[in-house]
Formats: sequence, C-alpha cells, structure tokens
Amino acid sequence: MTQVAIGEQVNGHSGLHKHVAATNRITSPGEEQLVLNTIRCLAADLCQQYKGGHPGTVMGAAAIGIALWRYEMRFNPGNPDWFNRDRFVLSAGHACLFQYLFLHFSGYEAWTLDQVKNYHSPKTRGSMAAGHPEIEYPGIEVTTGPLGQGISNAVGMAIASKNLAAIYNKDDLKPIDNKIWCFTGDGCIQEGVGQESISLAGHLGLDNLILVYDNNSVTVDGRIDNCFTEDTSAKLIAQGWHVIDVYDGSNDLAAVLEGFDRAKQLSGKPICLNIRTVIGHSSRKANTGPAHGQALGDDEVAYVKRQLGFKPEDKFVIPPKVYEYFSGIKAKGAKAEQEWNETYKQYRQRYPQEYEELSRRICGEWTAEAWQDALPSKAKLPQEPQPTRKSSGIVVQALAPKYKTFVAGSADLLESTFVNFKDQIEFQKPSSGLGDYSGRQIRYGIREFAMVGIGNGMAAYQKGAFIPIMSTFFMFWIYAAPAARMAALQQLRFIGIATHDSIGIGEDGPTHQPVALASFYRALPNINLIRPADAEECMGMWTLALDDKSKNTPSIFTLSRQPVPLLPGTNRTKVRLGAYVVHGAEIEDPELTIIATGAEVSRAIETAKKLESAKNVRVVSMPSQRHFDMQPDEYKQSTLRSSSSLVVAIEAWASYGWAKYAHASLSMHTFGHSAPQQQLYDHFGFDPANMASKIDSWANKWKVKGRLPGLGEFEELLLGYVQH
Amino acid sequence: MTQVAIGEQVNGHSGLHKHVAATNRITSPGEEQLVLNTIRCLAADLCQQYKGGHPGTVMGAAAIGIALWRYEMRFNPGNPDWFNRDRFVLSAGHACLFQYLFLHFSGYEAWTLDQVKNYHSPKTRGSMAAGHPEIEYPGIEVTTGPLGQGISNAVGMAIASKNLAAIYNKDDLKPIDNKIWCFTGDGCIQEGVGQESISLAGHLGLDNLILVYDNNSVTVDGRIDNCFTEDTSAKLIAQGWHVIDVYDGSNDLAAVLEGFDRAKQLSGKPICLNIRTVIGHSSRKANTGPAHGQALGDDEVAYVKRQLGFKPEDKFVIPPKVYEYFSGIKAKGAKAEQEWNETYKQYRQRYPQEYEELSRRICGEWTAEAWQDALPSKAKLPQEPQPTRKSSGIVVQALAPKYKTFVAGSADLLESTFVNFKDQIEFQKPSSGLGDYSGRQIRYGIREFAMVGIGNGMAAYQKGAFIPIMSTFFMFWIYAAPAARMAALQQLRFIGIATHDSIGIGEDGPTHQPVALASFYRALPNINLIRPADAEECMGMWTLALDDKSKNTPSIFTLSRQPVPLLPGTNRTKVRLGAYVVHGAEIEDPELTIIATGAEVSRAIETAKKLESAKNVRVVSMPSQRHFDMQPDEYKQSTLRSSSSLVVAIEAWASYGWAKYAHASLSMHTFGHSAPQQQLYDHFGFDPANMASKIDSWANKWKVKGRLPGLGEFEELLLGYVQH
Repeated sequence: MTQVAIGEQVNGHSGLHKHVAATNRITSPGEEQLVLNTIRCLAADLCQQYKGGHPGTVMGAAAIGIALWRYEMRFNPGNPDWFNRDRFVLSAGHACLFQYLFLHFSGYEAWTLDQVKNYHSPKTRGSMAAGHPEIEYPGIEVTTGPLGQGISNAVGMAIASKNLAAIYNKDDLKPIDNKIWCFTGDGCIQEGVGQESISLAGHLGLDNLILVYDNNSVTVDGRIDNCFTEDTSAKLIAQGWHVIDVYDGSNDLAAVLEGFDRAKQLSGKPICLNIRTVIGHSSRKANTGPAHGQALGDDEVAYVKRQLGFKPEDKFVIPPKVYEYFSGIKAKGAKAEQEWNETYKQYRQRYPQEYEELSRRICGEWTAEAWQDALPSKAKLPQEPQPTRKSSGIVVQALAPKYKTFVAGSADLLESTFVNFKDQIEFQKPSSGLGDYSGRQIRYGIREFAMVGIGNGMAAYQKGAFIPIMSTFFMFWIYAAPAARMAALQQLRFIGIATHDSIGIGEDGPTHQPVALASFYRALPNINLIRPADAEECMGMWTLALDDKSKNTPSIFTLSRQPVPLLPGTNRTKVRLGAYVVHGAEIEDPELTIIATGAEVSRAIETAKKLESAKNVRVVSMPSQRHFDMQPDEYKQSTLRSSSSLVVAIEAWASYGWAKYAHASLSMHTFGHSAPQQQLYDHFGFDPANMASKIDSWANKWKVKGRLPGLGEFEELLLGYVQH
Repeated sequence: MTQVAIGEQVNGHSGLHKHVAATNRITSPGEEQLVLNTIRCLAADLCQQYKGGHPGTVMGAAAIGIALWRYEMRFNPGNPDWFNRDRFVLSAGHACLFQYLFLHFSGYEAWTLDQVKNYHSPKTRGSMAAGHPEIEYPGIEVTTGPLGQGISNAVGMAIASKNLAAIYNKDDLKPIDNKIWCFTGDGCIQEGVGQESISLAGHLGLDNLILVYDNNSVTVDGRIDNCFTEDTSAKLIAQGWHVIDVYDGSNDLAAVLEGFDRAKQLSGKPICLNIRTVIGHSSRKANTGPAHGQALGDDEVAYVKRQLGFKPEDKFVIPPKVYEYFSGIKAKGAKAEQEWNETYKQYRQRYPQEYEELSRRICGEWTAEAWQDALPSKAKLPQEPQPTRKSSGIVVQALAPKYKTFVAGSADLLESTFVNFKDQIEFQKPSSGLGDYSGRQIRYGIREFAMVGIGNGMAAYQKGAFIPIMSTFFMFWIYAAPAARMAALQQLRFIGIATHDSIGIGEDGPTHQPVALASFYRALPNINLIRPADAEECMGMWTLALDDKSKNTPSIFTLSRQPVPLLPGTNRTKVRLGAYVVHGAEIEDPELTIIATGAEVSRAIETAKKLESAKNVRVVSMPSQRHFDMQPDEYKQSTLRSSSSLVVAIEAWASYGWAKYAHASLSMHTFGHSAPQQQLYDHFGFDPANMASKIDSWANKWKVKGRLPGLGEFEELLLGYVQH
C-alpha cells in the first residue's frame, strides 16, 4: 500500500507528524529488499571499521537513494562532466556515505569499493571518500558539510539551468533541460540560510528544483521534537512550493517512486518531497541521536546483519544480484548522453552562433578578447572625486551587458552598490511580469548568506560558465562569510561587491561600520580582498579578479561610500602586485614610508605632505595584501623599504595583521560611531593634520633611539576619541 | 470599520496579499488624526533637515506607535530601568526615528525634542539619536541595525522573562510578568536569523512575545513582490504562532487596537500582529523604495504638510494637544511601577531567600563568593590527557547547577561540547513534557546565528542577570559571527563554547576546520578569544571570563576535540596575563622562544626538546592575545624576549596576525583535509620532529646572518603537503 499525498493544502498539523514505526516490514519485491538490506549492512560495516562516521542516514534513506540513482536522475557514470547531466547536491553533507555508495553502485569508475572503504579513515593522499563530499571528485557537484548551504547551492544551480535554458534553448532544440536534486535533512531546513534559499526559490518558481527531504526527525542531540516542531509541509506551501508527502520512505520503495512520479507532473513551483524515514533503520538504535553520527558498535552491527539475513562475520558483502540490479545505469546514462550529443550536433548546425557562445561557456571561458582594453583609460575616467563603489560600476556596465557569463544581483541594495547595467532584465518567473529567466539581475532580497551560497551554486554548475557578481554593504559580508569561505575552499570564482566599507558610511553607525571583518578575509586562504584607492585602481582590481589566473579564486572588492579623488600616482597595472608606490616614487631613500589602502590613500598623501619629522616620504597603496605576499622578496623590500625606513600604515580598520608590513599603524581600535562621515574621520583622528602630528611624535621618538622598531615594538598610534 | 482577522487557519493565499490603497482616509477621531498627522510631518522634517534618514516607516506606522506606547506597553518613562517593564525591541533598527519620537512623546526626560532633532546628524558627542538605536540610551533595550537580529534578541528576552517568572513567581505574588514587543519589517523576516528565531519561539510556545510586523511590502529596492512573495501569515501559523491580521494599519488606529486586544486573549503561542501599512503614508512617494531610506525632498515635505493641514514653512510643529494626548503615560507608568514596588516589598517579606537571589541578579551580580576556589586544584584535575572541551565542562558542572544566572545551550551539540550539567532541566514549553520554563538548558536546534542573538537578548534583558553559555563547533561560530559582534559592540557578556577548534577535528575535514576565523575574533574589539593549553588553563580561562572586570565582554573559548596532556608549567592564575612562560622559565637568556596556543603547546614543548640549533629554549603559552596586548611593555618584553631571541609561533591556524609577536610561524597556510586527526597533524607538518627540523633550518640561517629578522622578514615556515 503506497502512502503518498500531494499537499497543496494542508489541514492541521497532526497527520504529518505521525512517523511510521520501524517495523522492518518488507513490502518491496525480493530483489529490491536484498538491495536495501545490502546497503544497510554495508553502511554499518563501513562505519564500524574505523568506529566513526554517519551510518544512520544511509540505512534510513536507502530506498531514496535507489529512487534517485537508479530511476530518477539523468546522468552518465561514464562521463561525470557531461554538461546536461542532472545535478545532485547532498546538502546533508555528513551523510556522504549515502552518496559514495550510490556513486559506486551506479558505476562511476573512480568510485571503487576500495575508495568507499576509505570512508571515515581516508588516507591523506589519493582518497576520495572524505568525511564530507568534496567537489574535486567525480559525481560530486559541490562540497557540503556546513548545514543549510547545500540548499542554497542547489537553488543557484537551478537558476543557472533556467538561465541557460532561457537564453540558448530553441523551440526545436533544447540542449539544456537538466534538473537539480537536493537531498536534505532536518538540519539544513532549520538553518537560516536554508530558509532564505527556500524562500527565494519559491518566489522564483524554480520548478527544475526538487528538494528531497529525508525527514527522519533526528539530529545529533536526538529527536528534533525537542527544538523543531513546525509543520514543514505547510510552511513550504506558504513559501510557494509544491509539497508531496511520502510516508514510510524507509520501507516502501514503491511509495517513494510514486512520489517522484507525481513530482514529474507538477510545474511552476519548486517541489519538495517530504519523505518520512527511520534513521538507522534495521538497528535497535533506530530513531535515536546515536544512529545519526556514531558507528553502531560491533554487537549492533551483528544484530543488524542477522535481522537482514546476513552473516555477522561477513563484512562488506555485496551479492552479485545487487550489482546486477544497478548494472543498467551505465548504459542508460551513456545513451542519454549520446542522444544529447546528437541534439547538440544539430544545434551546432542550426544555431552556430549560440552554439559557439554556449560551448565556450561550457569550457569555462568567458571571453578571448582583451576586454580590459575597452575600459576607459585613466584620462577618460571621471576626473572629479568619485566613490569607488561607483567607479567599480563602470566595469559592471562595460561587461555585464556584453558577456552573459555575468549574473549580477544584490541583497536589496542594487542602487547603492552600482551593479545595475543597461538594458538588464531581472531574473524572475515570467508570469510575475517583472522579468524572465533569461534575466541576469537577481533580486536576492534581504538574504546575504543565501545570496553567496546561491552564487556558489551558479559558479559550480559548470566551472567558469557563470561569474556571479553579488553585492551588499561590506558589513553584511559577515552574514555571508560562511558561504564566501566555501567558495574559497572549492576554488569557485565570484565577484563580491562590498560597499560602504568603513566609518565612511557615516550616520548608519557602528552596527554598519566594519572594523575587523577584513582581518578574516585576509587570513582566509584563496580569497582576494581588494581595496582600491580610486577609479584607476578599480579598473586594475577588476582586471586582476577576472584574469585567467584568478579563475579559481573568489574576490571581494571593498569600496567606499564617499567620493575619493583620482590620484596622480595610481596605476591599474600595478594592482596585481598587491602594493606599489603611489606617491614619492622618485625618492631613492625614503626616511619614512606610509602604507594605506582604499579611501585612506588620499589622506595618507596629504599626511605625508604635512610631516615635519621626515621630508622624503613615500606613500604606498596596498590594494591587496594577498598579492603583495606573493611577490618576490626583492620587490617587497624595495617597495616598503622596511629595513631602512620607518613604515606606518593608515587604514580605517583594525590594526590586526599590519605588524607584518609596518612598524606602526593608525587604525580603528574601537567600534565606530554614528555621525556624518566627514565628522567621523576627524573624530577618530584620520584627518591629515592629526595623523601627521602623531606620526611626527612617533618618528622623532625613533630618531632619538637611532634604530628602527623591532619585534614587539609595533605600535598602534592612538587617534582621537577613545570610547571604551 | 475595523478589519481584523485572527488567522488560526488560513485558507489560500489570495486574501492576505491585498493591501489597502493609500487613501488618506480619516477614520479615527480628530484628536488621534492630529497626532498621526503631526508625527508624519515631524518625520518628514527631521529627515529633510539633513537630507537623510528613514522617514517612511514612521509615517506609515505612526498608529502602531500610538498603540504601543500610549495603550499597550507597560513601562515607566520616569524610570527606564524599572525591572518589570515591558521590553521593546526595534528589529527594524533603521526605523529608529519611529522609536525616538515615541520615547519623546512618552515623556522620557532625556529624549528631548532637541535630542530627537539630532537624528541623522548626530553630534559625535552627547547625541543619543544615532542612525540606529543604541543600547546605551534610555528606553532602548538592544542595539539593532543588522537585520533579523532584533527578532532573535526579542526571543532571548522572552526566554529570560519566562525563566525568571518560572523560578521566582509564586502563586500569590508575581514580580515578573512583563511582555516583549518586537517591531519588525519585511527585511528581518527575510533574514535567516529572523526565521531561525521565529521557529524556535514557536516551538517554545513563548506567549509573552508579540511580534508587530509592519507589513508595508517595501524595502530599499522597492516593493518586495520582486523577491519575497510568501504567505507570511500561513508560514507563521505553520511555525506555531498565533497570527492576527490587521488591515489598514496606517489609517485605522481602532483596528490596530482591536488587533492588540485580541492578542491579549491568546496564549500558548507567540503572537504576530501582521499589520498592513503604507510606507511613506501621506506622501506621493508612498509605497516606494525611496520612501524607505531617503529624505523626501523639500517639495514633497511641503506637499505632505499641506495634505495634513500644516504649513510648509513651519518646521517641527507639535501642537499642544498632541503633547496632551500623550501626557498620561508618565503617570500611568509611575503608578505601574509603584504597584510593582508594593508587590516586590511583599515578596521580600514572604520570600526573603528568593527575593535576595532575584535582587542580586537584578543588580547584575551573580555571586559574591570566591567561586573559583571551589574548582579543583591542579593536583585534583584529571592527570591523564583530556580534551579541553571536556575540561571546560568541569566548570560548567561546577557553576551551572548552583547559579541560576547561567543558562546553557547548544546548537544540536550538547554532548560533544560538554555543556550538560547535573540535574538540569530543559527550557521547554511545559506541555511538551520535555522540561519547563524554569529550565536552564536550551536546545537551540541547528540555528547557530539565532542562538547567539538569543543569548544577546537574554544578556540584555537585565544586565548581568543572565550569562548565557552557548556552544557549537568553532567552525560554526562563523555562522554566529554577526551576533557575536553585536555582543562585543553592546558590551554584553556571554560564554561561547567553540569546540573541535582546528584540524584536530579530523575526518570531518576542511569544511569543519577553522583556519582564519580566529583572526576575525582577535581583531574584533571587546571580545575575548581564549585558547587554553590544558585543563589547568581551562580553569583560568573561565575565571578570567567571569571576572567582574570582564562583565562587559563576551568570551569565546576555542577548545580541542582531542585529548591534550596536563602540562607541568601551566598555571591558571597566569591566563589573565594573556601569555606566560610555560616551559623553560628558569632559562635567563633564551636563544629562542616558541609561542604556542591550545593543543599546540604540548607539541611546542616536545619540539623545543628536539631542537639542535638552540638549547636554551623557552616555550610561551599564549591563551589570549588580547590580554597579552594589555600588559605593560616590560612584561611583554620579558616574556617573549623578542629583542634578544628568535621567536617562532606554532598554531594550527593561519599565520595572520602572528607577525606582531613572532619572527616566524608554523601555521596552516591552506585549508585543512579529511583524515584522522593524528595523521593530519603529521600531514600538515605539526609533528615535533618536522617542526624542530624546520625551526633549526630557519634559526641557523639567522645565526649566519648574525642578527634578528626585521620588519618584512616574517616567514611562514612551510610545513608538509601543499594542496593548492
């Protein structure tokens, strides 16, 4: 008896919270039951061998896995990179054994049983079965683990697929029609980023997205009834999703398949299959916290095996019938790809221009042109002071209309962040009347974390086919930080626009004025934090971030709210060096060097002119610490002259990290304050007269000592008003 | 005609998305209409004077403000600190002009009209009307601004109030019965942290919490229909809330009041008043993005005034009748407090013990005892290796049962983080059967960001009455970072338990292994990041965090998953110095100093013993960079000997920030890896033999040079396998 209900309307809560008890009721034909049992025992063995891992989900969701890999998803194990493959995201990343096993059974050549056996004791080299799925390996679309983000990635992939389909598909030939399958548990649904993503997906009507909710009601600390008692189906419906409720998903493969069949008939909204399962099915620990993330223990493993008709002493048993059961997948996949190849061949003939563009994107190339030559030269840039957020917008205007690789968007700050572009179409459900799926301007809503997770999904969909441009105030890149980190980890490129980057935001006050956030992004591996001094450096910043060498690295541009002058010494070609002399380059032997970034560079130059303690002063602009670190020692020494001159840094952020480059800094050492921006710079002591005075005192002190400061003598030169 | 519907069941979506058009229909009696008009013109003027600010919410929600401050909330303007006052949280912090105006009208002495006139051009000193509400000022319970967090704070306050009521209220006398009112807009509801908080509040049945949703459907980028088209009322119902729909909240004060009246009759669940308003009501910019966050412009202000019967040339007009209208609030509040004083006096007589304890907590004192003397001495600590997460748990066990100030909790990792305590009761809705409101162990669910926002609300409810202990893996303190920052900004103390703090987590892999996160927390003002080397330092860490001097500072303890030995040289009394010599203290003139933190300290000592380039080696444990920075120069110099010896740091995190303390570091310079923990330490080169070898090479190089490294010569000594 199948128990499936399509929940368009849900009346009351009670019906949906009854979980079918773990009865080990065999309802499927013998063959499928053998497969389920085999998988369960395998999971138990694989975790028990090293006494770790997450066995419970595999055991409870085995039937879902069969439905997905054997029946529903369209992919070719022989070619994990086939472009039009369905994408599968395991948002519940800790349940990766589930995915590894099905990749093995589906016939991915690299996913041998020996590889799977590495699970939870991966060798440090050559091992693919990591503790959470890693994007580097075949069949894995994104790295997951931190809960909630997989859902955002899946939404991003759904957007990517809809967008490509809207742009390239023709009435007669549709090379893009893949679906996005996202497997989630209770955890990802509790997470705020999961909720944000679900909300946006519902608004956008992404009906190529199927969320498979492994609803076992158990997490690490046990049954979730102790903290999470929502009517999830009703909530999803309210968020614009179709919901299909499936009961007894652990035992009843037929019910699961019927759920998926009903899903195929629905359109216009993303679909959630809310499938009730029993975590740790077949074990006496079923339905409990320990089944989630602990090996079962030798006794329990033996019990499970006996229950399921296996011998306790036999480990990693896979009867030949089980391999036979899955053996058709490879041929089916190869056939699907072959048919697609035919389609794409015809597409090439009939639509050669679109074919060329799409193929280039599939290969991860966004242009072969020297696009940066089309940017205005320094002489052609606006000569009066401009906010760098606005100057950055010049490049968005130059690139986004022309190259479909770029999909811009903002968390409710489109105008303020200058990511609008001419003739843009909003990415919206066509029936909304606000845009369509060919659009490349996304209104993410007030959902900064989801925005970047979604961007990661777009970037991961097909490496290099999309470069998301995502914007909000720099302060709110703290909300998005977990997703930005994931981009860095997975080597996914995005362009992050982070405006209003300091006390320069003014009246909005300390809740909006970053002080420490740059320290995080500068410490993080594989991410660029670039703070341009003016419009000229903005051109260089974009060039650097979009360089082919940067294709594996996300970038965050921290930009000023307020206007900054176009400085004589700035040079776009030097941004890639990370730092360079922007004032006083002609001075051979500087007595003092000032390093500054962003909006403080012009102030630093003014300060240099006012100094009395030193007349031969150079000012260095350091738009990117990371790139400076990469330079040869000789360049670094000759730029900063740290062994022969005093070096002081000026930046309206925390001093943390500056001791590597300077003997002292003029920094923020407290949170900010609410006042007009100009007052704030004075209030915190960043006016050139005050800074020159502070530097003079300090420099004179060291002149008297007759040496340069050593380790342990780094000073924060206190500025202005001390609040705490 | 009032239009109110109580939504227990919501049928379909359509009815709820009809917004009443801005008709300027006068439905309230003349007096209240005058008040509404006055407020609208005032808002327009106050923003126009400096051409900035957020006028629209004030204009649209004026009737809600009247309902709250004049009718519903119980507070005493004459005593903003009256303990049993209702708490009001403006989650939509940018709408603070709304709150400032009503604080003024309600009669808070400090909130003069001149103070309010500072709005959006606050002086840098003495001005209270900041761009977002700041906790330091009367009538403001928490600082808000970053969207979504106010809701989490309000949930925390509701928990605090329920908890105190459950513990201290008696059948005959109830000194705690305040309500929590949270005003929110569309933005906070879109934010993930808002959703997480709403979800938990529904589960907990916090019926002392009223969420007043100013539903104007407009944010910065315009009408939210472009990104947010959920059925919010249906969603809230699914999340366990009562929902009362109010239409025409801008014009119909009677309807608003009826909504509040109906709310008073409901119990068992938190309540949301979903009130439809027109942002920028009375202006031609009504219902648009610009009405949200821009001054209206001189012409538009003039228009508004003419519409509402005011003269354009008159600014800041407040007719005497308007002051009269609000004049009863002070007396009402004084009376309410006086009645409460009577109640509390009787409570003192009848329940002296409870009175004493409660009063002490109200004063922000959690104990006068030398509680740390009750902790086991070093000799009494477990002598075999223990994970520091477990050692930290010793203190939780010692304090939490005894002092009700502590409310522990975890984001689904109770067992792993050792915040359980003997005989604990879970904080749960009594009808759940899982606990009751007297409980002090909170299951936050997989909602790390909400957890810390909620903790902030508890801490802010009454300064010092609650010290939340909140736990998750250190990696997921990145999800919570925005809330941790808000605690630091507002000087709210919490104890953050951050376990599994490095590659020591092992198989979970790079998604779970922090590398850069400590750099953020170390750069952030007013927050302690403490990494103890062993159980002895754990005792000192807690002592430092709970010291009276630390009452305005949150702390995060980063703790190991794996066991670490109890080191001979550790000393709990020295943790407060931030760093101290833990090995080789007897050496007068060290040739080399190694600084290490946490689990790496023991490795550093082993490394020191293996060095060949130097025999006189001291090892310094540095549990807290922040506290070390506070020490006098003499102490810092004598501890590190940076002017006379090579100094190298060892820490399995990024090297960022170490150049201030060391000439070189052995650090993580990439993301981590999935493998068993012991393998990982070797893989990344943190085994003592390898580290000694690397240090020897480096030290010998400098011996040859005959000097110490200078600025610009800081080296990351590469360890082990390079991944990217």
